[in-house]
Order: sequence, then C-alpha cells, then structure tokens
Amino acid sequence: MRKLWGGRFESQTDALIEKLNNSLVFDSRLWRQDIAGSVAHATMLGDCGIIAKDEAMQIVAGLQSLRDDLEAETETLPPDAEDVHTAVEGLLRERIGAVAGKLHTARSRNDQVATDTRLYLREQCDEISQSLHNFQTMLTELAEREMETILPGYTHLQHAQPILLSHHLLAYFWMIERDRERLTDLRRRVNRLPLGAGAMAGTGFPIDRQRVAEALGFESVLPNSLDAVSDRDYLIEFLSFASITMMHFSRLAEEIILWNSQEYRFVVLDDRVTTGSSIMPQKKNPDVAELARGKTGRVFGNLMAMLTVMKGLPLAYNKDMQEDKEPLFDTIDTLLLVIPAMELTLSTAVFGRDRMKKATYGDFSTATDLADFLVKQGLPFREAHDVVGTVVRYCVERNLALEDLKGEVFGTLHPLLIGKEKLLSTLLQVQSSIESRNSEGGTASVSVRLQLEKAKAMLL
Amino acid sequence: MRKLWGGRFESQTDALIEKLNNSLVFDSRLWRQDIAGSVAHATMLGDCGIIAKDEAMQIVAGLQSLRDDLEAETETLPPDAEDVHTAVEGLLRERIGAVAGKLHTARSRNDQVATDTRLYLREQCDEISQSLHNFQTMLTELAEREMETILPGYTHLQHAQPILLSHHLLAYFWMIERDRERLTDLRRRVNRLPLGAGAMAGTGFPIDRQRVAEALGFESVLPNSLDAVSDRDYLIEFLSFASITMMHFSRLAEEIILWNSQEYRFVVLDDRVTTGSSIMPQKKNPDVAELARGKTGRVFGNLMAMLTVMKGLPLAYNKDMQEDKEPLFDTIDTLLLVIPAMELTLSTAVFGRDRMKKATYGDFSTATDLADFLVKQGLPFREAHDVVGTVVRYCVERNLALEDLKGEVFGTLHPLLIGKEKLLSTLLQVQSSIESRNSEGGTASVSVRLQLEKAKAMLL
Amino acid sequence: MRKLWGGRFESQTDALIEKLNNSLVFDSRLWRQDIAGSVAHATMLGDCGIIAKDEAMQIVAGLQSLRDDLEAETETLPPDAEDVHTAVEGLLRERIGAVAGKLHTARSRNDQVATDTRLYLREQCDEISQSLHNFQTMLTELAEREMETILPGYTHLQHAQPILLSHHLLAYFWMIERDRERLTDLRRRVNRLPLGAGAMAGTGFPIDRQRVAEALGFESVLPNSLDAVSDRDYLIEFLSFASITMMHFSRLAEEIILWNSQEYRFVVLDDRVTTGSSIMPQKKNPDVAELARGKTGRVFGNLMAMLTVMKGLPLAYNKDMQEDKEPLFDTIDTLLLVIPAMELTLSTAVFGRDRMKKATYGDFSTATDLADFLVKQGLPFREAHDVVGTVVRYCVERNLALEDLKGEVFGTLHPLLIGKEKLLSTLLQVQSSIESRNSEGGTASVSVRLQLEKAKAMLL
Amino acid sequence: MRKLWGGRFESQTDALIEKLNNSLVFDSRLWRQDIAGSVAHATMLGDCGIIAKDEAMQIVAGLQSLRDDLEAETETLPPDAEDVHTAVEGLLRERIGAVAGKLHTARSRNDQVATDTRLYLREQCDEISQSLHNFQTMLTELAEREMETILPGYTHLQHAQPILLSHHLLAYFWMIERDRERLTDLRRRVNRLPLGAGAMAGTGFPIDRQRVAEALGFESVLPNSLDAVSDRDYLIEFLSFASITMMHFSRLAEEIILWNSQEYRFVVLDDRVTTGSSIMPQKKNPDVAELARGKTGRVFGNLMAMLTVMKGLPLAYNKDMQEDKEPLFDTIDTLLLVIPAMELTLSTAVFGRDRMKKATYGDFSTATDLADFLVKQGLPFREAHDVVGTVVRYCVERNLALEDLKGEVFGTLHPLLIGKEKLLSTLLQVQSSIESRNSEGGTASVSVRLQLEKAKAMLL
Repeated sequence: MRKLWGGRFESQTDALIEKLNNSLVFDSRLWRQDIAGSVAHATMLGDCGIIAKDEAMQIVAGLQSLRDDLEAETETLPPDAEDVHTAVEGLLRERIGAVAGKLHTARSRNDQVATDTRLYLREQCDEISQSLHNFQTMLTELAEREMETILPGYTHLQHAQPILLSHHLLAYFWMIERDRERLTDLRRRVNRLPLGAGAMAGTGFPIDRQRVAEALGFESVLPNSLDAVSDRDYLIEFLSFASITMMHFSRLAEEIILWNSQEYRFVVLDDRVTTGSSIMPQKKNPDVAELARGKTGRVFGNLMAMLTVMKGLPLAYNKDMQEDKEPLFDTIDTLLLVIPAMELTLSTAVFGRDRMKKATYGDFSTATDLADFLVKQGLPFREAHDVVGTVVRYCVERNLALEDLKGEVFGTLHPLLIGKEKLLSTLLQVQSSIESRNSEGGTASVSVRLQLEKAKAMLL
Repeated sequence: MRKLWGGRFESQTDALIEKLNNSLVFDSRLWRQDIAGSVAHATMLGDCGIIAKDEAMQIVAGLQSLRDDLEAETETLPPDAEDVHTAVEGLLRERIGAVAGKLHTARSRNDQVATDTRLYLREQCDEISQSLHNFQTMLTELAEREMETILPGYTHLQHAQPILLSHHLLAYFWMIERDRERLTDLRRRVNRLPLGAGAMAGTGFPIDRQRVAEALGFESVLPNSLDAVSDRDYLIEFLSFASITMMHFSRLAEEIILWNSQEYRFVVLDDRVTTGSSIMPQKKNPDVAELARGKTGRVFGNLMAMLTVMKGLPLAYNKDMQEDKEPLFDTIDTLLLVIPAMELTLSTAVFGRDRMKKATYGDFSTATDLADFLVKQGLPFREAHDVVGTVVRYCVERNLALEDLKGEVFGTLHPLLIGKEKLLSTLLQVQSSIESRNSEGGTASVSVRLQLEKAKAMLL
Repeated sequence: MRKLWGGRFESQTDALIEKLNNSLVFDSRLWRQDIAGSVAHATMLGDCGIIAKDEAMQIVAGLQSLRDDLEAETETLPPDAEDVHTAVEGLLRERIGAVAGKLHTARSRNDQVATDTRLYLREQCDEISQSLHNFQTMLTELAEREMETILPGYTHLQHAQPILLSHHLLAYFWMIERDRERLTDLRRRVNRLPLGAGAMAGTGFPIDRQRVAEALGFESVLPNSLDAVSDRDYLIEFLSFASITMMHFSRLAEEIILWNSQEYRFVVLDDRVTTGSSIMPQKKNPDVAELARGKTGRVFGNLMAMLTVMKGLPLAYNKDMQEDKEPLFDTIDTLLLVIPAMELTLSTAVFGRDRMKKATYGDFSTATDLADFLVKQGLPFREAHDVVGTVVRYCVERNLALEDLKGEVFGTLHPLLIGKEKLLSTLLQVQSSIESRNSEGGTASVSVRLQLEKAKAMLL
Repeated sequence: MRKLWGGRFESQTDALIEKLNNSLVFDSRLWRQDIAGSVAHATMLGDCGIIAKDEAMQIVAGLQSLRDDLEAETETLPPDAEDVHTAVEGLLRERIGAVAGKLHTARSRNDQVATDTRLYLREQCDEISQSLHNFQTMLTELAEREMETILPGYTHLQHAQPILLSHHLLAYFWMIERDRERLTDLRRRVNRLPLGAGAMAGTGFPIDRQRVAEALGFESVLPNSLDAVSDRDYLIEFLSFASITMMHFSRLAEEIILWNSQEYRFVVLDDRVTTGSSIMPQKKNPDVAELARGKTGRVFGNLMAMLTVMKGLPLAYNKDMQEDKEPLFDTIDTLLLVIPAMELTLSTAVFGRDRMKKATYGDFSTATDLADFLVKQGLPFREAHDVVGTVVRYCVERNLALEDLKGEVFGTLHPLLIGKEKLLSTLLQVQSSIESRNSEGGTASVSVRLQLEKAKAMLL
C-alpha cells in the first residue's frame, strides 16, 4: 500500500525494515476509534469552513459506511498497510475518491494516534472498572454468606488471631476499591484531547478543538501541542494501576493455591476452573489462580517496558513511542481475562468451613486475648506479654491447647489470674476472641457487618 | 537492647540474623512520626479510659520531652535497638519507668509502623509538591522571558517546525502539573489511618480510631484491619508517581545535555551546576542533568523492587514488607535532590538565542506551511504533500534554503503557486510560520500567551 | 479437542478458563521440536524394550510423516487443542491409531515442554550468534574503510579528545563480542536434557536418558528430576543476555540518531532504512535506530516479567511457568529483527567525513596533549592541568582555537613553553593528537590496526 | 577539599550540587582497591621511565603507608572530598608533597574508577562463590542425613508423587551450582583491565598495560579505550546472576515458610533464626526466610536500575554511570547476608520426619504407579491414565486411601488388575513408589545416592 509520506524518497523501504516499522499488526484494533476520531475531525473541518461542508459530509458518510462494513466484516483492513490510519484512509479513498485526501488537513499521525489510543483506553477503563465492580459484588455476597465461618488469621503465614472469613474476603474488597479509585483518577488524565496539536506545533488552520473534544466526549483539550503528541503518562499510569491490581490478585491467588492444597483443604475448587495432570490422574490443579499469579509478571514487565521506552527521550514525538501499544493492549487483555476468571473461581468455590474452624484449635491464636485481659487488670502491656509467653511455653511443653487450660492452672501462672478461671476459659475460646475484637474495622461480627454495609454502599 | 517479644524464646538471635532483621539503621528517620503517633494513641487511651488519665499524661509528657531532646540532639536513639519503635519505647521507659509499658496497649508494631510511614510520606508529599511548584514557577518565568526566542521544534530529533522556546519550556510545565495532580490523588490514599488494626484483627479495647485520625490529621480510618496492616499500595503508587516524574526530568535532562553540546550550543550552563574533567581542562560537563537522567534508574528500580516484594504475599503482614522503607526513603531523597538541582540548572542557564534562531535557517521546517497553503488553495492534503516533496527535493539538489526560494521558481513547481510569489516568500519565513500556528495549544505567540496565563493560574 | 487429563473430571472447563489456559496460540511454534523430542523418546522406548520395537517404529514413522506434512503445510495443528503437545499427539493418533497413546509412556508434559523449549532456544542461540557475527563482520569492514576518518571523541556528550571513526566503531565490536561470549556460556546451560524427569520424580520405566540426550544433541542430562521440570534459569539468563545486547544497540541507536540530526550531520542514512512524515515532507526519520532504542524497553520488560514469575515459587512445576514462552519468543523475534536492521542501517550509511573532521576544529580537544607535554617536561600532572586551564581560558576569552595559538603566546603562558613553539603547533593539531595515543587500545592508527587484527581474529 | 578539575572554573559549585555529585559517601569502600591500583600504576610509570624511578618509589611508599594507616584506622578519608580518588590522592599529597601530583600521569578518573570497581567486584565474586559453596556443602550434609525421610513431592502445590527429602534438597544444590557456574563465567569478564584507557582515547605516554594487568592479577587488557571506560556489562551481568540467585533463595524461602506453618509443620526452626511478635506471644516467625524472599525485590530492582541507567547512553563515559556503585554494593551486601543466614536457618532446622511421611498417606500420590503398572501390562498410557482416573474417583467417593485398596476391588475396576492384588498392594505403598523411580535423576534412593556423589564431586 502506498505510503503517506513517500514524496521525497527515491528508493523503497527494505522489506525487513517494513516489518520492523509496521504497526498494523497490533494497532488494527484501534479502527473503531480511528474512524470515530476522523468523523469528529471532518465534521469540525466542515463546520469551521476549512473544507467545504459537502466535502465534510462526503467524508463522514464514507467513514460511516466503512465502519458499518468493517463491523459487519464485509470489509477488511488491507494487511499491507503501514498502520491503521493508512489502512482506514486507503479504504476511504476507494469509496469516495480524492476528497478523502482532505481528511488529513490540519492533522498529523502524531496527534491522531494519541487520540485513537486515548479513546480506546477510556473505553477499556470503563470495562475494567465494571469487571472490578462485578468482582467486588461477588465478594460482598460471599462475605454475607460466610459471616459464621471462622478461620485462622495469619501474619508471617503463622496463625495469629482467629477471624471471620467474611472479614478476610473483605480485605480484598478494599484493595480493589482503591484500584477503582486509581482508575477513576487516571481516567481523568486519559480523557484529554491531543487532536489539533498537529505534528507538534499546532496548526494554522482555524480549527476548533473544543468542538472536537465535545463531540468525542473529552473533558478538556491538552494545552500544549508538544506535550500533546509526546505525552505517554496516561498509559504508564494505567500500567501502574494494572500492576498494583495484578499484585492484589497475585496475593489472592497465592491464598487460593494454599487453601486448595492438601495441607489446608480450606477450599474445594470447581471443576470448571481447574485442570488435571497428564500423568497424575488424581490432581486437580488450581490453574486459574496460578495463571493469575504468573500473569502478574507480564504486567510488571509491561510497566517496566514503557518506563524504559520513555526514559531520556527528547521532545517531541519519537518513533520509540510506537512501542506503547503492545504493552497496553496486552495488559488490558490480561486484566479482562484474569478478573472474571478469578471471580468465577471464587464464586464457585466451596469453603471447607469445618476444616477452617478446626485449624484454629490449639494454635494459641487467642494468646493476645489473655494478654489483653491482664492489661485490663492493670498490668502494663509489656509485662502482660511476658506472662503470656510463660503460659504458652507451659502449654507447648505439655502439648496442651490454650483453650483447654484448666482453671486451677491459671492461678499458678500469675497471681492476677487467680479466681478468674471461668471468665478465662470463655475468653480463650476462638468465638469469644473474635467477638471481642469489635473495634472499628475489627473482626467481630458486629464490626464486620458495619464494614459490609460500608462496602455495599461503595458499589451503588 | 531488650526485644519486645523475647518472652517465649530460649536462645538468643544469632548476630548475623540480628543484622538481617535490624531496621533501625533506616527506620530511625521515622522517630518524629513514631512519637507523634504515640502521643495521639496515648491521649486516646486516656480519654477512652483504657489507661488512667494520669498515666496517659505521664506518657505524653515523657514522649514530648523525648522529642524535644532528640530534636535538640541531647538524646540519641540507642543504636542496638531492633527498630525505631523499640528505640523510642526504650528511651521512654528510661524516663518514666514501667508505665511506659502501657503505651503499647491496643496496638501492634504492624499498625504502628504503617501509621508512622504514612505520616512521614504525607509530609514528604507536601514537600515534593512544593518543590515541583517551585520548578513550575521557574518555568513560567523563563517562558515569560523567552517569548521572543525561536528554535527548531523536533520530532525524531529532526527539525520539524519552528517553535518558541517558551512553548517548548511550557511542555514541561504540563508534565509536572500532571505529576502534581497524581501526587494530590495519591496523597488521599496515603492519608488514611491504619492504627487500631492491631496485629491484624482489630482489638477488644474500646478504642476510638476516629479520634486518633482527627488528632493526626488523617481524613479517614482504614475500614478493614487485615488490609490496614498489609496494604502497601500507597507506597507503590508513590513510587509510580516518582518514576513518571523522574522520566519527565530524564527527558529534560537529555535536552539540556544535547543543548549544552558543541553541536547545539543552545545553552551555556552556569559554573555552579557543572564540573570539569581531571584530565581534559577544557570540559564543562552537564553533571546535574546527567545525574538527573541517571538517577531515573534507581527510582524505576525502587518501583520494581516493591512490586516484586508484594507479589504473591498472602495476608496479612509478612516480614518481607519491612523492605518497603529503603526504596521509599531513597526515592524521596532523590526527588528532593534532583528537582531543585534541575531548577537551579535551568534558572541559571543562558540560552543561545542567536544560535537557536540560526539553527532554523535552511532546515525546511516551514515545508508544512507550504503544504497548508496549497490546501487552502483547494488541493487535497495528500496531493499538497506530494508537491512539497518535489519542492524540497528541488532545493536539496540545488543546496537552497526553502526560505530563499525566489518567486519565479514557485510557478514552475506547481500551477497553483503562480502569482503567489510575494505571499509565499513571507509565508516560508520562520517567524511567519510560528505566528501562523495560532490554534489552541499552538506555538504562535498569541497562543503561547494564553497558555502561559493558564499555567500561571494553576500555580495559585 | 479431548484433554489429556480429563478422566476424573465431571464438568467441563469453562470457556473463559479454556482461553486463559490455552497455550497453543503461542507454543505452536514449538511443533518441530516437539516432534523431534518425541522421535528420540519413542526410539529410546523401543530400544530399551519399554514398548515394542515395531510400536516404536510405527510411532516414529507417524511422527515423521506428520512433520513432513506440517512442513509442507498440507496438515495443520488443530486450533482447539490445549497446547502443542496435545495437538501433535492428537494428529499422530489420527494417523496411527491407539498405539499413539504409548508415546507418552515414561514422560510428562512437564519434562516434555522443558525439552521442547530448550531445543528451540538452542537453535535460536545459534541463529542470534550468527546474526551478531554478521554485525561484527560489518563493523570490521567499516573500521577498515574509515581508518582515515576523524571525529570528536565524547565524554558527557562533550568533545573530549579526537579519535578515529574506526576506533569508535570497534568499541561496539567488543560489546557484541562479550554478548556472544555470554551467549556461548548460557548455551551450555540450555543444552542439558530435562526429559526423563517425568512429572517431577523420575520414572520407574527403565529409560536411558543418555541415549536420548545423544540423539537430540544435548551435552548432558539434568541430574535432579525436580530441578529439571522447574528450572527456568536458562531462559532468564537468555533474557539477561538479550537485555544487555539490546542496551548496546540502544547506545548505538542513540548515536545514529544524534549523528543523523541537522546539528551533527555526521551520517546520511539510506532511504531504505528511513521513513518520512505524513505532514512534514522534508523529514527523513531514523526509524530503525529509534525502534531499536525503543524495543530495548520490551526486552527489559520481558526479563522483569520472568524474574517476577519465578519469584517465590515452591517446587516443582507450577502453572505460572507457562508464562515463560511469550517473553522468550518475543525477545528472540526482537533480536532477529533489530540486529540485521541495524546492520543494514550502518552498512548503507554514508559518513559525513568532512563534517566530522571539521567538528574537531576549535573544540580544545587537544588540551590534554598540552598537559601531557608539560608533564613530559617534568611538571607534575596536577600542575600541568592547571596551566592548561589557564591556556584554555585565554583562548576562550579571545575566541581562538587551541590549534591556532601562535608560538610567541606560549611563552607568556608558562616558562616551560618558551622555545617550544614549533613543536607545540604540531602537537596541538588533531591528527598529531590522535597518532600520539598509541598505547594498547588507544586511538592512534597503529593501535587501531592492531585492534582490528585482533577483532578479525575473533571472527574466525 | 580542592577539586582535581577546578582550573578553568570561576565560581564554586553550589552546595546542593556538591551533594548531588558527591560519591565519597558510597565509593569510599573502594579505598583498598584504589590504592592497589595506584601502586601498580606508579610502579609501571617508574619502570617505563614515564616518571623517575625514585619518584615512583616515593609514591608507592606513600601509598603503602597510607594503606596501613587507613587499615589501622589511624588515618581517615577526608569527608569533604568529592570521591575516593580525590580523597586518596589528597592524603598522599599531605604525606609526600607535590610529587603526588605525578601519580595521575597517563590516567583519568574514568579508567581509574572502572579499575577499582573491577578489582572490588572480583574479590566479592570469590567471597560470594565461597558462601554459595558453603551453602551447597550444608545441603549435601543434609541430603546425606535425610536419605530416609519421605515427603510429598508437589506440582501446583498439590501432592504429585512421594519423594525423598534428600532429593528435594538436592534440587537446590543444582540451582546454586548453576549460580556458581554463572559467577565463574562472569568473573572472566570482570577480570579485564581498563586502566590505560585514559579519559577515553588512550594515552601518548609509553605505558605498559600488560605489566599493570599482571601486577593486579587481571587476565587481559580491554582492547578498546572507549569501551574500557564506558563498559558496565560486567556489573549488569553480576546483577543478573544475583537476581537469579536471589530468585532461587526466594523459592527455598517460600518453602521454608510453608513448612514452618501450622498446616505443614514439616520443619521446626531454631530460635536463633526466628523472632517473635510484640503482641502475639505464641508466634515464632520465619523472619530469615521472609527477609530472604523480600530482599529478592531489592536485587531485581538494582538490576532494573542499572539497565535503565545504561539505556541509550552515547559513548563514552557519562556521569550517569556514577550511579553504578550503590546497586552493586547493595547487591553484594544482600547476598553476603542472605546466603549465610539461609545456611544457618536450614542447618539448624529440625525436620518433622513423621509429619512429612504422614502427609503422603491418602494423597493418591502413587496413582501414577498404578498407571505405569497398567502400561507395563500393555495398555497404552492414555488408556491407563483413564483407568486410574476411575480408580481415584472410586476411592474419593468412598473416602479411601489408594494404598488401602483391598485386592478384590482391583479386579472390578479393570480386567488387567485381576489377580494382581498382592503386587498392587505393595506397589501402591509410598516407599515402593519412591524406590521404583530409579531412573537417572529420579527419587529412588539408589538414584539419589548417585546424584549425591555427583554433587559432592562438584564441590572439590
């Protein structure tokens, strides 16, 4: 296909170099945005008298018929075009002839590709936000359902204090809520119009950028033409958001993998989200979770790729920036695959409630409750901590669970415990421990219910 | 120094392991925040009746005297302490005795360190924002001063179209404006209180987190205790912001280095911001710019470090997270060194105005103006583009500058140019080219003035 | 297509999950290696009496016909297969029936995929090594041709000392020589056989791994079955190699971009390796160099991706590791595109010899020669350095080139220079400066010739 | 302290900029190497007649006394020096006067710092190699000791096939063996002499680089002076090595953390390598393993930092490269802390042998043995796999362990199993399963013993 810039050149680009330069193989997915941007641009050119009204109408009609035919797959992009812009303009020319050549008035591929990418990313932000919202909704449903389920809370992967499964699941709700916040914040910076910046210095045609912005739903126009064509912040910011989001899913994935193991058996995953082994017939592998965890790597890599690309580039546009699309698209695809897959994994999982509950027995995870009790009796926390250390050692040596300590023993361990046997034997039960932690954001069911209401309110 | 958790342990930690575990060497810089957090916590404990009012007052007074003495450097943190929290509490105990042990009631180091770090980062966000603001102010001053300075605008490091230096400098204004936006956005997520989450499950003491939040100036409390102690998003988000900001400075640095070269001579840097060579006495090296560009690496690395640390960690706190402070501190230090150093570099630079202007001569950078002229005569842009290609080739072959083309020649190159000689000879001058690009965000001085007003308004 | 592991499962995998799991879309490129590995495996099974000889022959024949048909494109891999192994085995079964099921005896996909990938990477290492070798050959040819070309040598992008272009180009020779060394080193670690490790514990069939290794050209067998299926070092090491190689090309690319700029004009690039602008007809953009520089990002990103994937994975195989292929393939493709493209760029470039020479005039780059002269007269280097500083300042103030200093002046600047005028005026010429630096590895033509011989010897 | 390059400059460097430029704060650790390099350089200068013999002797004697005094801490580096080279030369001047100024003849800081860093890194390579060797030795001792210990082998963190603990531990032996191989390979590239490259073009003094190389133990001299001062490959290659090594330790760390959990209890860690909680007295946290895993992040970050620094830098030296030392030093320190700490952790660990053995009961991890049995009866593997799927489902539904299947049942499940009851009941025992996998590199004790011999041979 004929290049847009061939005028001055005497020899052809080398085939290898064509392959290196070609971006159609990945930017073809921007055709809808490319057409939408061109429709708005042509309309404005007509309205501002830069081209004739009827020329503008011809162009717009041609673009719309092209869009319909591409949508219906009765037309396809020519595979030998250099990029999506060239491909679209070429097809337009086939339909409406030489007047197609007027479309590129007051425009450059530099501002055009930035516009296309922003339009595309804006849509994808909304789709990803919805996908995250679905995930959060599922979490609140699970949290509602599992209000009675008790499991060990962990720090250092050691049992720390018993908690409600609802509380545990809601921790992920808030991580993802922050992800959505970040997405909302960055979307504002995506949603600014570069078109009208021309190659990098603006244009002498009496264009109206505000009008184009309005037509395309942009909140504002970028105020500096050099910056407009060379800014890729919005994209790196998106990759940062995506990296943090994937990091969150990698943590959840790690937990699902642990919980699905024979050692934990806290969860039974559905056949739909697991696979088997080609040699070990008994295996039921948590593939979705493993892939979610593994795909974190590619998203981190994409972020690093784009930061590297932009490092040290002088103004304004440089060809290096063509490298922006693949990491962006790959990241979007990854998120839109991983989020619903993890949603399905969790929503179809059956939690091993008994197993979870049983795991809290004998794990000393109510030791802090004993310490807190002593503190309430007036002992400084540091001393209370030491006393509990002694009690734990006493139990470990005798292979006793803390919740099974008999009353008379308490008195021998510390004077403040004398006569508190009954109270203590309740206090050291897992259920009491949980219900006692009724501080704001704590694991007591009263606190978790409040938290859940708050969470649900975020989804409205 | 005595460990806070030694009760149960029979043998001592190995010396090597102590060194591995020790965080005082870097977290000591959090002592102000640690004390401030403890003052708020102790006050609340007293107000809520969790400890006696007078105990709370004793603790607060002890902390305040400690703070004053540390500030005055009449007291120092014990170097053998495990971390800043242990160090502060140990010194407090020396001052007020056993009652110091009550400070840790209803608190864990897990929520304490997260609180300290957030307090610290919040302050640093404000300092960095101010530093960026100063940088922007300097840019607007330069832009104001250099409204008459013309230089080539570049794409692909090739002369593209002539622009005003003010326009070029303001491109960086908007990059940094977005950096400040991001900083404002992320600061909201920093400014949430983890304290009260305890080790990970909340606490049974009747604490009042809202009160603590208010005392410390936090906007809200984190609603889930597991998340509160295991969230490091705010820090990664800060490192992402910093990476993008450093990327911006790396681009500016690259330009300063180019402009300072013998080939460009667009700028003469001040002696205060350059250094010499130990063997080549004539050298005047743009060290600040080179270091700014080089230090981009460390900030990208810090971001990657923290993403790696958090990948795949199960809930809630894991010791791995102790690795969060060094990359954070290093990044803050880097920004607070690089930003003012670059400000000094630019504000003391002398621009080679003649040299810049001269560089635009004969570079064909007004070729687009010719194309646009043809378009205005009714030629479709694509054809106009081809015509200009021919004109350029004509000039190149004769070693002519475009702005020196004589009238009669035009007619021979295209019929539409016949009789337009006078107009064309003006149009192809660099000055006219610039002034013609008066679209919104364009490089015409009228557009740049509007842009500058807009920029200055952002600084109020 | 039927799964290899479906036996135990009651419900189907979800479609979304199938998409997530599917690796055929990228691992299909391993079909040649998969067949080669299976041929060797089947032959060994027959030779060792694990399956019947004639069964082995049937399988081998089936695989060979399949390979021929795939090569001839008269057969294609079924697009609905889960992965390349399943696809190949399925096609084999179509050809030879149930006996195909015996091929997977004493094998698992875990050791099979590792074998395929190593075979593939080994081939690609050789291809990349050849590509680098070609590049080096081109460099030596250029170096030979440009032995008379003088240009400024730079540090801090400032003129430092004049050098030969040959010397400059050969600097890249040695970088790439190290790249090839690294490739040779890592190839040894690629070239070890995992097959026979089974799923992770070895196998009870009396296999002969040495025989398979020999048949497939592996140097040794991996000595631990767990490690054999979970090792991805060889791949990360390759990505490290590739990152360093791309870093080298990014440096060369940066120089080509600079040299191609209007400010330098040290090089004129061929039309075959440049492209134009859609709006600025005069532009001739160094796209290949820009893309080479930009694609550094994706390779760094791929390295970071794989390091992230492997971080913290317990033994042995985990599904996360399926993420290893895309970054590997993308990196190989990038290298095999960038290296020849850069070779073409450089080999077709015309160096601006006059322009380069002229650039050394008046740049004080022979100042060190003056300092060295003084040192040879007995002045300590540090004092000589100071004297030269004064001389340079003298010239700068009078706008004089160092090489134009008149004899009588020297004496006024330092007593040691009295009477040395003639010698000095030769010594400060660029040509003399270059020829004087005849230390081993220096820029004098005698040294560069020796260096060039050494370089050429590396290519034999 | 006086700058080495101040001659031409009129105003002082700004204090902020001094801070930015200063490298003494981190490069001071190179003082030993700086002195050693200078001793060799001065000796050569004397031997080659570039300076007088007695001057050389004076300088060498001065440097040696300085080294002794610095070693004895009776002398310290002046904290206000710009870098270690300036500091050392300044102190030398104090001792021997103006003749000290002759030391810098035929040398630049560019080749000097590269020499110092290579000398330092070479030593550290040896130290790290020794540390890894110690770790491997410990692994072979454990493997020897734990030849009877059985545990589940995992894939997807699911029980796959039973293995020997020795086999599992030796998997790490081979990972680290590859790390040592890489270290050996890269050390060759570290061990090349840059000194004599001068600033970047070589020198006109009749130096003898081979002599210096020999004196300092370098294997060869770098053959191109530009490359010699601008090469940082050796350092990036080291960081790549370190990243892979840390990745290995992160995997081991993950397993230790899992094994130390209440769910596994496969290991009891020693008090010396664990710490407690400030609020939960019962906790015994695997801090060393967590920090080892966490510190992987910083090493990956350091690698990414240096790749970023070098990306796109033109030749030859640029100030950006000063950023090379901190990531290098930090990585070395990390390795030399983590490796012995992990060695201590593992060598003092008590393995829960019973617990491990028990974990293999009822996990169906001998299912493959059944499949293999069927294959040996002539069933194609794929069909055997299906049969075993049915058997497993049968057991799961009846809550039976595979090893408890009664003989009569077998026959009902598949005709080929009729009459094989006795054989099968042995075959499905964990111990038989392990011993059956006697392929090269397999988990049978006979194979593991051979592997262990091979491993021990690597350590000689």
